[in-house]
Amino acid sequence: MTTKDPLVVFTPSGKRGRFPRGTQLLQAARSLGVDVDSVCGGRALCGRCQVLVMEGDFPKHGISSHAANLSPLSETEQSFSQRRPLPAGQRLSCSARIEGDLVIDVPATSQVHRQVVRKTADTRPITLNPVVHLHYVEVREPDMHDPAGDLQRLLEALRREWDFGPLRCDLAVLQSLQAALRKGEWRVTVAVHAGSQLIGVWPGFHDQVYGLAVDVGSTTIAAVLCNLESGAVVGSAGAMNPQIRFGEDLMSRVSYAMMNPGGARQMTEAVRGALNTLAAEVAGAAGISVENILEVTVVGNPIMHHLLLGIDPVELGGAPFALASDSALGLRASELGLNLHPGARVYTLPCIAGHVGADAAGVMLAERPDLRDKLTLLVDVGTNAEIVLGNRQRLLACSSPTGPAFEGAQISCGQRAAPGAIERVRVDPRTLEARFKVIGSELWSDEPGFEASVAGTGVTGICGSGIIEVIAEMYLAGIISQDGVIDGGLAKRSDRIVATGRTFAYIVHRGAVPLRITQNDVRAIQLAKAALRAGVQLLMDHMGATEVDRIRLAGAFGSHIDVKYAMILGMIPDCDLSQVSSAGNAAGAGARIALLDSASRKTIEELVHRVEKIETAIEPKFQAHFVAAMGIPHSSEPYSNLRKAVQLPAPKTATAPRPGARGRRRAGA
Amino acid sequence: MTTKDPLVVFTPSGKRGRFPRGTQLLQAARSLGVDVDSVCGGRALCGRCQVLVMEGDFPKHGISSHAANLSPLSETEQSFSQRRPLPAGQRLSCSARIEGDLVIDVPATSQVHRQVVRKTADTRPITLNPVVHLHYVEVREPDMHDPAGDLQRLLEALRREWDFGPLRCDLAVLQSLQAALRKGEWRVTVAVHAGSQLIGVWPGFHDQVYGLAVDVGSTTIAAVLCNLESGAVVGSAGAMNPQIRFGEDLMSRVSYAMMNPGGARQMTEAVRGALNTLAAEVAGAAGISVENILEVTVVGNPIMHHLLLGIDPVELGGAPFALASDSALGLRASELGLNLHPGARVYTLPCIAGHVGADAAGVMLAERPDLRDKLTLLVDVGTNAEIVLGNRQRLLACSSPTGPAFEGAQISCGQRAAPGAIERVRVDPRTLEARFKVIGSELWSDEPGFEASVAGTGVTGICGSGIIEVIAEMYLAGIISQDGVIDGGLAKRSDRIVATGRTFAYIVHRGAVPLRITQNDVRAIQLAKAALRAGVQLLMDHMGATEVDRIRLAGAFGSHIDVKYAMILGMIPDCDLSQVSSAGNAAGAGARIALLDSASRKTIEELVHRVEKIETAIEPKFQAHFVAAMGIPHSSEPYSNLRKAVQLPAPKTATAPRPGARGRRRAGA
Repeated sequence: MTTKDPLVVFTPSGKRGRFPRGTQLLQAARSLGVDVDSVCGGRALCGRCQVLVMEGDFPKHGISSHAANLSPLSETEQSFSQRRPLPAGQRLSCSARIEGDLVIDVPATSQVHRQVVRKTADTRPITLNPVVHLHYVEVREPDMHDPAGDLQRLLEALRREWDFGPLRCDLAVLQSLQAALRKGEWRVTVAVHAGSQLIGVWPGFHDQVYGLAVDVGSTTIAAVLCNLESGAVVGSAGAMNPQIRFGEDLMSRVSYAMMNPGGARQMTEAVRGALNTLAAEVAGAAGISVENILEVTVVGNPIMHHLLLGIDPVELGGAPFALASDSALGLRASELGLNLHPGARVYTLPCIAGHVGADAAGVMLAERPDLRDKLTLLVDVGTNAEIVLGNRQRLLACSSPTGPAFEGAQISCGQRAAPGAIERVRVDPRTLEARFKVIGSELWSDEPGFEASVAGTGVTGICGSGIIEVIAEMYLAGIISQDGVIDGGLAKRSDRIVATGRTFAYIVHRGAVPLRITQNDVRAIQLAKAALRAGVQLLMDHMGATEVDRIRLAGAFGSHIDVKYAMILGMIPDCDLSQVSSAGNAAGAGARIALLDSASRKTIEELVHRVEKIETAIEPKFQAHFVAAMGIPHSSEPYSNLRKAVQLPAPKTATAPRPGARGRRRAGA
Repeated sequence: MTTKDPLVVFTPSGKRGRFPRGTQLLQAARSLGVDVDSVCGGRALCGRCQVLVMEGDFPKHGISSHAANLSPLSETEQSFSQRRPLPAGQRLSCSARIEGDLVIDVPATSQVHRQVVRKTADTRPITLNPVVHLHYVEVREPDMHDPAGDLQRLLEALRREWDFGPLRCDLAVLQSLQAALRKGEWRVTVAVHAGSQLIGVWPGFHDQVYGLAVDVGSTTIAAVLCNLESGAVVGSAGAMNPQIRFGEDLMSRVSYAMMNPGGARQMTEAVRGALNTLAAEVAGAAGISVENILEVTVVGNPIMHHLLLGIDPVELGGAPFALASDSALGLRASELGLNLHPGARVYTLPCIAGHVGADAAGVMLAERPDLRDKLTLLVDVGTNAEIVLGNRQRLLACSSPTGPAFEGAQISCGQRAAPGAIERVRVDPRTLEARFKVIGSELWSDEPGFEASVAGTGVTGICGSGIIEVIAEMYLAGIISQDGVIDGGLAKRSDRIVATGRTFAYIVHRGAVPLRITQNDVRAIQLAKAALRAGVQLLMDHMGATEVDRIRLAGAFGSHIDVKYAMILGMIPDCDLSQVSSAGNAAGAGARIALLDSASRKTIEELVHRVEKIETAIEPKFQAHFVAAMGIPHSSEPYSNLRKAVQLPAPKTATAPRPGARGRRRAGA
């Protein structure tokens, strides 16, 4: 390299160097450490190394750059562009050679560690760094003079062309290697897992490598299919968890496992079968073969996690709620009976504690509260609420035994979120009349055409978000007091308030079968929200915090709930309402991050290790917090931030209910 | 530790140190690096740490040692000795505490790396150092205050009690861990593979760990069952290789795979099924469960090796004879469909080249020619002879296409070694009469009672060793010339020499169906032995050696053959007859060494890497060596050593036969 050699500047990195005329552009980039992707190893097959020649004078760099300073379009580039047209000004850096000064832009799509943009604005982009990479190689043919095995010559090629050290090799790869080498005429593509293990081999050039991020929920299983070379989401699908036939909620499934020999096995087979169906479905819809899925990441609560792994969840059904393992696991997909590529691997995110699972780890990975100075509260509501509180300094987590009331269970007219279910409710404080919206219709119940719009489904019940809203609205309208008592005196003002024995109920919908919120329903929600709020309070106590800066509600529930009503009800602590938002399916997003960015696995494993686990069941203050949280929004906390946004009824001294009468429910305790 | 503390000397190591009174003897031994075994971690359960107190004055050590200088027999020792009596003077070093000066002998049976004595005198002992170890641990119970998973608490116990670093864990262990911990009341025994992976867990104390050394031959499969804690052979068994139904010899099996879709798969299933049957049989005979077999080592020729692994052997059927892999492999037994412990592992020894397999590697490991200054020739005769020549400086290997003549195939009256087969032959040079011995009878054919002794089987044919002997004896008696021609002129002297068309034959046995050696039979043996001898000569050429110091004949053939006749026939080069011997089933012995001493795996992998592989098919001098070796014992070499021991007919100039007329056979070439 002399000062007379052409100068080449790569953007956006700004890396620069002088290279002899005739130097391959890709080689120049690599020698400077510029991040340029390649699957085919510089053979003009994959098109991953495309770069753009910047034309013009660049005073900043002191050079003029022109397309003519690169070698003319080579035959291989012409042949490539017949298959896949090259955008104007773009060249394959493995074919183009330096002939003069150049400014070369490496577009994001040609970078190995490019960033994948996530949909919502307030989440970080994902760095694409999958655990599986494809590498195309040309292998030396066998020779009587050298008895090296085919695998050894393949490894030699991987060392020569891709700088790999020793690699282990799956037996299945060894079984198909010889045929692949001969079919591909000594050119094959291999899949290398974690830089250390050969897990797949294809004859010739192959660039199909996909991954599946799976969120195994008790009710639904969601899978997102990603292209691991581009990071793009190419499909997603959800299915009911077929384990529901063994028990609606988590604890009834644990009971099933306890009561029925082989019951855990049956549930394991059910969830694995569902995953196979889902994988085939999402791959089929995306037009790819399941054989091209090489990596799977999994999140799920501890019981789903254990059942998928074939571990009897019986220990999670009672104190001390011992997990079989809280570590992240790396497995072969075949060990879980998954019908994907024979060498596909599975990574399960770590669990935090017996009731704070890999789903909570996924939420943490998606939300990364540890990257902020502000104190973030993450809440994922299910049968148990999983709660994380933390910032850059400290992370705390617990679960709280909310029970399934928020999901519509234990509520007289409650139902799952499905067409026909009331999901939004408004109560007029003057007339005490209710209007509502139903899943499946865009209209409010008092709008013209509503009846027709729900003719197909009817109005069948109230789902979780509807229950939150109706009770909060009843409170705002003065129908229930701060301590949760339905005011029977109002029966004089409105026929929607009706006596039911010694207590009263509020009729939300006057149908053939009226939908009513009873005193017991209000109590059930109070108990559930008090448990959640008490768990949050415990974490705040441990953190020494009197308030939180941000609240993110994760999960399906968090997506559908109106955060204002959640706060009016006192499910979450007082906070500036603009700082409270849904995190969507954050657990699933965490699974996708772990899928696309293998470095994030170490991050979440270390984060989970750092988390201080708080066991609510043995915290002496839990009961007191629970009692104090029974009031709406709270029996003692003023909720000053909320009051700035919403006109709440004047606080009054609460008559604490006696939760002991119904007892606290911890799932299975 | 002060100079007033008691002095303890451990023999045979001679390690010594002073320890405070009350120090546990096992702890003292370990702190000095004395090799004392323990499975139970010092809980007086396993009895592996037994030591012997030496009584008396030891001027060499300057101390008096007495049993009274140890703490009295503890309760745990008494309880142990009720289950398993302690020999006089022996104590459990985990229970006994130092109370005064002591000389303590650690018997070989209490050493971790003790030596296992092999049967034959001229082989080295094996250092017991299995890849799987059992460890008994007490695990902390789960606790609401600490949400660590059961696996994490197990790993913590293994770190605390056994000083393990991070361990990976089989999914099957994770699946059974929680039940095992609770059944064992937080005491479990685990199996750790290669110091890095948990592969088994049992409730409470468990000390059953076995390994299987397997030699997969084309004809027979042999398995030796070893106790991996003691190194003892507890059983062995052999079975016919059921692949024989797809083809008698190796090449006909490769042909079967080539001609029949799924043929390789069928043969893979056959050999795996046979291995399962054999494992169950040998375990049953030893009174152990196959579930206690945790490790398997395998040797076999390249085709058997590939078929067992489920690799289509088609590439081994033709030049350039490319192996799928020549490396040693570590696999799960379940990947090979073996029904052993679910976590059992398999280790296959490396292959040397396309025709020099893991069986030859086994022979090398058993014989270790690299440890001697003397030049050793190792010969393993099968369809292809595998030949190794070497010493401390250099190792060479090749295979030579002998074909199956030595196994009795291609010989008119040849048969497998089985009852009724002639295995020994003597020809009287004066009368030209033959006498012989038959497998299944102890009598020579001219001894009284012989007829009765073979009445059950008859005299059915001549097996490999019988063919070697009869042709060598015919040569010694002058019936065949040095160039292999049966002298028809002798028909005048003996009715055993008969005309068969234009050539002659010799009647070995005058039965209802006479057993004869025809001119073609002699030619077949000449071709086979010339191929073998030419291979040996090539290695000697490469080595620059004109003679070898030692010859070891491996395999079933080597065990049954009389080495003198093998040399008279010129199968092997001239050598002092006292330096020629059978190595027995050396390949199988190599598998057993790899089973018992995991460090030997690295040794053989490095040795195989060092071996210079000679491909006979492309060696220009092979043909000339082959032609020169057609004569008996050789067409040009004088065999001076042999002549000192045996009176050979005077050498005469050979009329070289034309081997090209029948052509050389390389299996499948």
